[in-house]
Order: sequence, then structure tokens, then C-alpha cells
Amino acid sequence: MNSTTTDRYQVCPIGAVQRTESDIKLALLPPFRPGLLQLRHFSHVIVLWWASQFDTETDRNRLQTTPPYAQERVTGVFATRAPFRPNPIALTTCQMLQIDEEQGLITVHNIDAYDGTPILDLKAYFPVSDRLKEAHLPPWLVDWPEWIPDEGLGIRS
Amino acid sequence: MNSTTTDRYQVCPIGAVQRTESDIKLALLPPFRPGLLQLRHFSHVIVLWWASQFDTETDRNRLQTTPPYAQERVTGVFATRAPFRPNPIALTTCQMLQIDEEQGLITVHNIDAYDGTPILDLKAYFPVSDRLKEAHLPPWLVDWPEWIPDEGLGIRS
Repeated sequence: MNSTTTDRYQVCPIGAVQRTESDIKLALLPPFRPGLLQLRHFSHVIVLWWASQFDTETDRNRLQTTPPYAQERVTGVFATRAPFRPNPIALTTCQMLQIDEEQGLITVHNIDAYDGTPILDLKAYFPVSDRLKEAHLPPWLVDWPEWIPDEGLGIRS
Repeated sequence: MNSTTTDRYQVCPIGAVQRTESDIKLALLPPFRPGLLQLRHFSHVIVLWWASQFDTETDRNRLQTTPPYAQERVTGVFATRAPFRPNPIALTTCQMLQIDEEQGLITVHNIDAYDGTPILDLKAYFPVSDRLKEAHLPPWLVDWPEWIPDEGLGIRS
């Protein structure tokens, strides 16, 4: 293996989540706005965001957890979507409602990230890469919806 | 917006892609192996990997491109899955064939990453988070397959 436990790579925010009472926007910093060209032709975008609250020594070393939906079970973080993980990169697929390429603003239907959350990357949702015809799931998840809900994934209250 | 163009975050490899003539494995470094617990109950995993070849000043500033499948069109990188992007984090959904939790080895059906590629994160594929019932696509992509192919996504030769 080439990688070692001491290698480090740097990532930077390309923008941040902006929540107001009326809507939720992904606001891109000026240098990154040209990357939005043609994104308006897609309905959905995968947002990689930095779970900054969990960028701590302790949280990055939490490798197992008891998920809220399976309290009797200890689970490795890679078998969950918990925001705490060795690299706290979270992933949410969002429906896009509007794009302003000049201002670098994408209005999204929903996202499970707080106001001010740094965004690391945006990737158009390509069914050929992202959409599975069949997926097998653990017994504790088989009753969950089989698709992303129409209302998207938001912050749980 | 809280984020600025000078913020930086550190990520580290949790393992690397190991390709041999007989199979492809995701090999986890020892400290991260406990995170695999229960992942064997899922059929597919989303792999976030570091496109190290494109971790250069030049490539991280390439914000537009002409994709091989739409040569007459200039496209922002966020509307593509190109491995060069401001943060060269690539994403591939992989079918898992076998997991050895002790040795930290996941045998996958396919992945479009070279031998030695650093892995940043593994996320079990949850249909409720990752599977879209309907996605709208640009005209230059409408003839593409609607699902991840059975053979997975590999390195294009």
C-alpha cells in the first residue's frame, strides 16, 4: 500500500450553505463560480460538505457507534452516514430549484446541513454512476424508503 | 458566508485501492478497520477517493472543460465527474463481494481508480439517501444508461 497513516491532503471550501427563513442556497465563493456552467441542465446535485462540528481529534477517532435507528447494535461508522468519521466529509443529494451562475447561487429544495456549513464539492447526479437498480440492506434498514423522498433530506428536528 | 477562500481542512487516507490480476480490494489501514463493523450487511458502498494525480495547482484551478462525451460543449467541472476539480475528491459506488474485517479488506467488483489510490471515506449505500426515482439530465446525456451497470464502473482502457 502506498498510503500511510501520516499522509495528509488539503481541501478548501468552495462555498457554504446559506439558510434563511424563505429558502436554502448553496453560495459559491467567486473563484469557483465558473464551475457551475451547464449544471442547470441537471435536476439534482451531490453536495460534499465538511461536517465542521466533528472536525475534532475525538470525533475523527470514533470508529463505532450505536445508530439512533438501531440502538441494540454497535456499528462501524462506514456502515452509517454519521457526520463523525475519520474524514468528516458528508454527502447529500439535493434537488436544485434555481441556479444563478453569475452570483454563484444554487437554490436547493433541502439539505441536512446547518447554515454556514462549508461545501467542498458539487457533482451533478449521473444515474449511470449513482443510481442502483437493486441494493441489499441490513435487516434494521429494510423498512426504510427505497428512494430519496420527494421533500429531500433536511435537518432532523 | 462564514467560509473564505483561505480556509483549509486536512484529510488523511484511511486506506488504498489494491489492484491485482485476480481482484480489486479496498485495503484499510489498521486504525480504521473497526469502522467496517456491520458493513457486510450492505451490498454496495460509496467510496470517496483522492484523485492524487490531479492534486496540482493547475488541475485544482481548471473549472471548465470539454467532456469527452460532449466535445462541442464547454462545461463547468461541477456539471461533470471529472477527477480534476478544486478538491479532487472522486466518488464511486461499488458492489462489495467480500469483507475481511480483521484484515481490513473489501473485495469490490469494480472501481475506476488506479492501484494505490488513497481512499478517504466509505459510506454504505442507503437508497433513502442515494437513490433517485427520477433525475433530469442534459440533452447530451439522455441516451446514457439509467442505472449503474451490473459490471460497475471501471478504468476506461
